[in-house]
Amino acid sequence: MNIPEIDLQRVVIIGGGFAGLNLAKKLNKNHYQVVLLDKNNYHTFQPLLYQVATSGLEPDSIAYPIRRTFKNAANFHFRVTEVYGINATEKTVNTSTGALRYDYFVIATGAKTNFFGMDSLENNSISMKSLVESLDLRSKIIQNFEKALYTKNLKEQEALMNFIIVGAGPTGVELAGALAELKNHVLPKDYPDLDIRRMKIHLVEAAPRILAPMSEVASKKAHEFLKKLGVHIWTNTLVTDYDGTLVTTNGKTDFYSETLIWAAGVKGNPVEGLSEENITRGNRIEVNDFLEVAGKESVFAMGDVALVHSNDTPNGHAMLGSVAMQQGIHLANNFNRLVLDKKRKPFVYNDKGTMATVGRNLAVVDLPKFKFQGFFAWFVWMFVHLMLLVGFRNKVIVFINWAWSYIRFDKGTRLIVRPYKE
Amino acid sequence: MNIPEIDLQRVVIIGGGFAGLNLAKKLNKNHYQVVLLDKNNYHTFQPLLYQVATSGLEPDSIAYPIRRTFKNAANFHFRVTEVYGINATEKTVNTSTGALRYDYFVIATGAKTNFFGMDSLENNSISMKSLVESLDLRSKIIQNFEKALYTKNLKEQEALMNFIIVGAGPTGVELAGALAELKNHVLPKDYPDLDIRRMKIHLVEAAPRILAPMSEVASKKAHEFLKKLGVHIWTNTLVTDYDGTLVTTNGKTDFYSETLIWAAGVKGNPVEGLSEENITRGNRIEVNDFLEVAGKESVFAMGDVALVHSNDTPNGHAMLGSVAMQQGIHLANNFNRLVLDKKRKPFVYNDKGTMATVGRNLAVVDLPKFKFQGFFAWFVWMFVHLMLLVGFRNKVIVFINWAWSYIRFDKGTRLIVRPYKE
Repeated sequence: MNIPEIDLQRVVIIGGGFAGLNLAKKLNKNHYQVVLLDKNNYHTFQPLLYQVATSGLEPDSIAYPIRRTFKNAANFHFRVTEVYGINATEKTVNTSTGALRYDYFVIATGAKTNFFGMDSLENNSISMKSLVESLDLRSKIIQNFEKALYTKNLKEQEALMNFIIVGAGPTGVELAGALAELKNHVLPKDYPDLDIRRMKIHLVEAAPRILAPMSEVASKKAHEFLKKLGVHIWTNTLVTDYDGTLVTTNGKTDFYSETLIWAAGVKGNPVEGLSEENITRGNRIEVNDFLEVAGKESVFAMGDVALVHSNDTPNGHAMLGSVAMQQGIHLANNFNRLVLDKKRKPFVYNDKGTMATVGRNLAVVDLPKFKFQGFFAWFVWMFVHLMLLVGFRNKVIVFINWAWSYIRFDKGTRLIVRPYKE
Repeated sequence: MNIPEIDLQRVVIIGGGFAGLNLAKKLNKNHYQVVLLDKNNYHTFQPLLYQVATSGLEPDSIAYPIRRTFKNAANFHFRVTEVYGINATEKTVNTSTGALRYDYFVIATGAKTNFFGMDSLENNSISMKSLVESLDLRSKIIQNFEKALYTKNLKEQEALMNFIIVGAGPTGVELAGALAELKNHVLPKDYPDLDIRRMKIHLVEAAPRILAPMSEVASKKAHEFLKKLGVHIWTNTLVTDYDGTLVTTNGKTDFYSETLIWAAGVKGNPVEGLSEENITRGNRIEVNDFLEVAGKESVFAMGDVALVHSNDTPNGHAMLGSVAMQQGIHLANNFNRLVLDKKRKPFVYNDKGTMATVGRNLAVVDLPKFKFQGFFAWFVWMFVHLMLLVGFRNKVIVFINWAWSYIRFDKGTRLIVRPYKE
């Protein structure tokens, strides 16, 4: 794979998400040779994918070229490649661009969409875990309205203007809110030939309330906010089938829709070459609180793909960017302690809280000791997301887009650059 | 096609470029029903496509959603569709989404790449006439360097790092300059594992000098500027064949390169249904100075696709955005005069000059009475392009990208969002 062999221990990391990027950044490269592998040449800021899908942000401003983070870094090598698997006995990783030996191997491959084995949903729905998927969804949403102009068949038109979002976690809630804003402020001006009031946004959730992992009050307020924006919420409702037009549920209502957005679940995305015992609930890799994979020498896992099993966290942590970020930094510190002959420390998550935004001036924030909703929460949400976004240029451009959208009640990038092909 | 039939004359325009967009905007919609057709839902600012290809600008900031230009406009209808051709006798236009009758028909379909019948070039080279093509080129350029990391074969590596630009008009010159800036400021930091000095940019031109349509002094200065940036210029050299690796020329040198960018020519892109006599040199539609197509009642053509044949312009005008813009406005004024029973006016081009930029602080400007080069020309180039860009949000974002690149010697969007597939 053309990585120079030098007299340093080699740490190979797969995945340039929050965990991998932070680990690679903080590792002491005077003592370790660091190799970062990713199938993309950029880091994706996943929390804002829904804004790309709803024409609020351009894709390039939530992606950051990984090489730029490490420009001129010594003893650091980044390669765009697809990882096939590892051989933990021989300590090699097998990729689409050849094999590579490692001294330490860190799996930070994140999560992928979980369809819970339902093929009809996997084949006919759209999900939103990558930049390309968000761009496809953006194209699809606009194409629907362009198509709706050509039909006089009301049922067909309604199926094009009905959007079913399955899963009311933060992603589903934020997407529903953004679609509602498109409906309320943008689409009626764009499509005077269509009766946009007939557009419907349905948010379908199996649990008894939306934002189930958040507090009751956040859930209640978000529900209120979404109602106010005109989103139809169906809790305790399980989607069981979707043939591309008919959405079947276990509840009273079925829906006709050309667009089902699947935000109902994710699962770990581990690499090949681990044992069955290494994989635990949610398809995640079980690690101890040093982030070590049991029985695999010098193999670590962190971020969404890892489940830290300790006495304090029998079910692991939530799949959150803040967990991933802290684990990346933590593991780097442990590696850096090793070379100083210091003792490693176990990982303890410092809970920063969770938040979700519904629309302009509307968000919900759960801090460990304090919960608030509304305008101030929305402001905090924006500030935190701007700060977490990688890259100064990206921060400025996202800020301008937000300011512009706020003042103009508009969403700037309603482009079908590459049409979505069903 | 689901356009309401009302008691107004219907003007159908194909193409949302500078000509079509300006005509549609200025037409008096109290007296005409206006239907604009385009295969994309956005207007592309073609002069900056090369900056998208070289990671300087995000695609979304040089594209503008056509619907936003016309939001809430009465008696205006926009449709995304592919136009197959017209039937000038029955006064209908045939599209991928059905037929439509017209009272007036305006062809503003622009230009497409001209390979002058050389299949090997058409099949193996990349051109840059659309947003998608620019994004493909951006991916391809970055992919080349990622690939070069994996090979120890020097010849193969050189072929990946050799860029052959054929055609030294403004597009070729600007692209060569932007690639040179990537080479000089960005790539060495991104790829410390590669010897970027071995990257070569060759600009190949059949004419005796670059920027042939511009003044001698502009041409000479641009040549100097490009040399200074390290671009190799081959004038009087005709590329005759390209098999994907070997570039054959009629000159002393052949080149090995994985990337040939074809900027050597464009030709008109007329619709089907015109007579052979309507098509003149450069595959353009011959029109009189009222922009009328001979022998086709109520059919007009304008912009790059039209060649205004009059005593003053035996060879027509250059294919320039400023010509297209003026023609769009002119034709709108003529239509608007008609309803007031005023006499129509013949089109006269008001020459605004031409310009090209080579790199930071380096540009050449030919005004009708005044020619200048260097920093001030570069400043004027930027100002004019910012002003011509459609949309306030786009202007701000492009400005920020330029300011940021200028200060940081960087290009922000080095992303392979969708890999280029050979």
